Amino acid sequence: MMAPEQAPAPAGASHCRVQTWQAGAVSTQQDTLAEELPVALEFNGISHAVMLATPLDLEDFALGFALSEGIVDSVHEVFDIQQESGCDGITVKLEIASARFARLKEMRRNLTGRTGCGLCGTESLAHAVRPLTPLPHPGVVHEAAIRRALTELRQHQTLQQLTGATHAAAWCGDDGSIRVVREDVGRHNALDKLIGAVLKSRPAALDGFVVVTSRASMEMVQKTVTAGFGCLVAISAPTRLATELAQAAGLCLIGFARPERWVAYSHAERIRAAAPDSSCD
Amino acid sequence: MMAPEQAPAPAGASHCRVQTWQAGAVSTQQDTLAEELPVALEFNGISHAVMLATPLDLEDFALGFALSEGIVDSVHEVFDIQQESGCDGITVKLEIASARFARLKEMRRNLTGRTGCGLCGTESLAHAVRPLTPLPHPGVVHEAAIRRALTELRQHQTLQQLTGATHAAAWCGDDGSIRVVREDVGRHNALDKLIGAVLKSRPAALDGFVVVTSRASMEMVQKTVTAGFGCLVAISAPTRLATELAQAAGLCLIGFARPERWVAYSHAERIRAAAPDSSCD
Repeated sequence: MMAPEQAPAPAGASHCRVQTWQAGAVSTQQDTLAEELPVALEFNGISHAVMLATPLDLEDFALGFALSEGIVDSVHEVFDIQQESGCDGITVKLEIASARFARLKEMRRNLTGRTGCGLCGTESLAHAVRPLTPLPHPGVVHEAAIRRALTELRQHQTLQQLTGATHAAAWCGDDGSIRVVREDVGRHNALDKLIGAVLKSRPAALDGFVVVTSRASMEMVQKTVTAGFGCLVAISAPTRLATELAQAAGLCLIGFARPERWVAYSHAERIRAAAPDSSCD
Repeated sequence: MMAPEQAPAPAGASHCRVQTWQAGAVSTQQDTLAEELPVALEFNGISHAVMLATPLDLEDFALGFALSEGIVDSVHEVFDIQQESGCDGITVKLEIASARFARLKEMRRNLTGRTGCGLCGTESLAHAVRPLTPLPHPGVVHEAAIRRALTELRQHQTLQQLTGATHAAAWCGDDGSIRVVREDVGRHNALDKLIGAVLKSRPAALDGFVVVTSRASMEMVQKTVTAGFGCLVAISAPTRLATELAQAAGLCLIGFARPERWVAYSHAERIRAAAPDSSCD
């Protein structure tokens, strides 16, 4: 998006000169673009995956990926996270519990000689949709809280306002207040960054709900449930597989979400029309 | 999106009951959702990758993926494509030229013991951004043609109109007419389906341009250039890496594209303000 000529580019963004065409008139301007870099995740010295991501909050990203993909079961199993920048991109090095690394190696041994794609190392259909443990005690979500979060989210999307190129994922409180926001050019990455940022603070409970500015595909539901959130609100559409998985796992899935209107695709019985300051279940 | 109660679900979509919340009122309605299924691609009997895709035009998808990821260099090297449906998803089996399969095996051998993610088998930073051969003779693009394509594309997005969940990729002629359109819940998949659909018809020239309804990330530029198209028009934002790759590869990259306004990020010198019926370079 167009930026003042002299403003320095903020973190995660850079300036470039572009040509704008409007109603037959061409003008040269300065634009602000979101950064996108190859980011490699390394577990206990072994490279696991490379993703294209916005180089912001990469420790949250790595921690969130390890949790949402079931590589570790809790933040306590991640001992250290270090970043290393190189010419080709950034490597994030995680040290994880030896039992979890053994489990990861076992999974990788089963994949030897094959390459995975798009599903984080998955190369067979049987492994594409991971079995999910249903959420144990998902809470209710208040209509007024959803409305508040959807109204307030935009002003927290710093990088999106500058570049128009990034998705956001936000953790919102029971009252709809925006507690944590993360942004990335990739929607899965934004959600992984949020999951890492929230869980590293070891909150007493994952109450409230998650809002994503993207669609809700199967993988978004899978990550949300694995992290332990009870409700996912997506600005755009879900897929059928996402709604089925959400129903089975006990996730309240809301799509096409705007402050004044949204559609509930699973566990709509947990949405309350009451005001957010009334008592919660 | 809401659908008439009795209409049968079209291919690639299905119906479900949902709750719509609007200004405090809740109603139950029938909604139409886009299908999303695990799709495995198998080359000469060896599983290569699993992606989540809309189960439409999967032969185009498989052919396009093989071409856009540089597994084969031309459609002549793909001898057969067969689909097999199972409980977990769909497997698309390609038979490719033995020299290309040997090259793929060699690449995969180098990855043995590692799993890839997000970048189609890539696990090291050095391989994340493939070197691209610059486009040899990219043509010009006419302003009026871009305007026409952006105006007319929406009516060709059949699945998007029903579900609100799918991206489209379209090949447009020099005059902006929409020649081929493909849709998918994933933007990379939509582009791969388009590439397969266009190249299997073995057109004399890849004139005109490609329009995608999504953002233009590095991988979208990589696929477009590898397939041989000279211009990519994206409805949403590019990333910085995408603009750099497009500049180096000779791709005219246009972003934030609307009929009345767009931004040129690379090779803007190939956009002509002249009418589309004037002579082309």
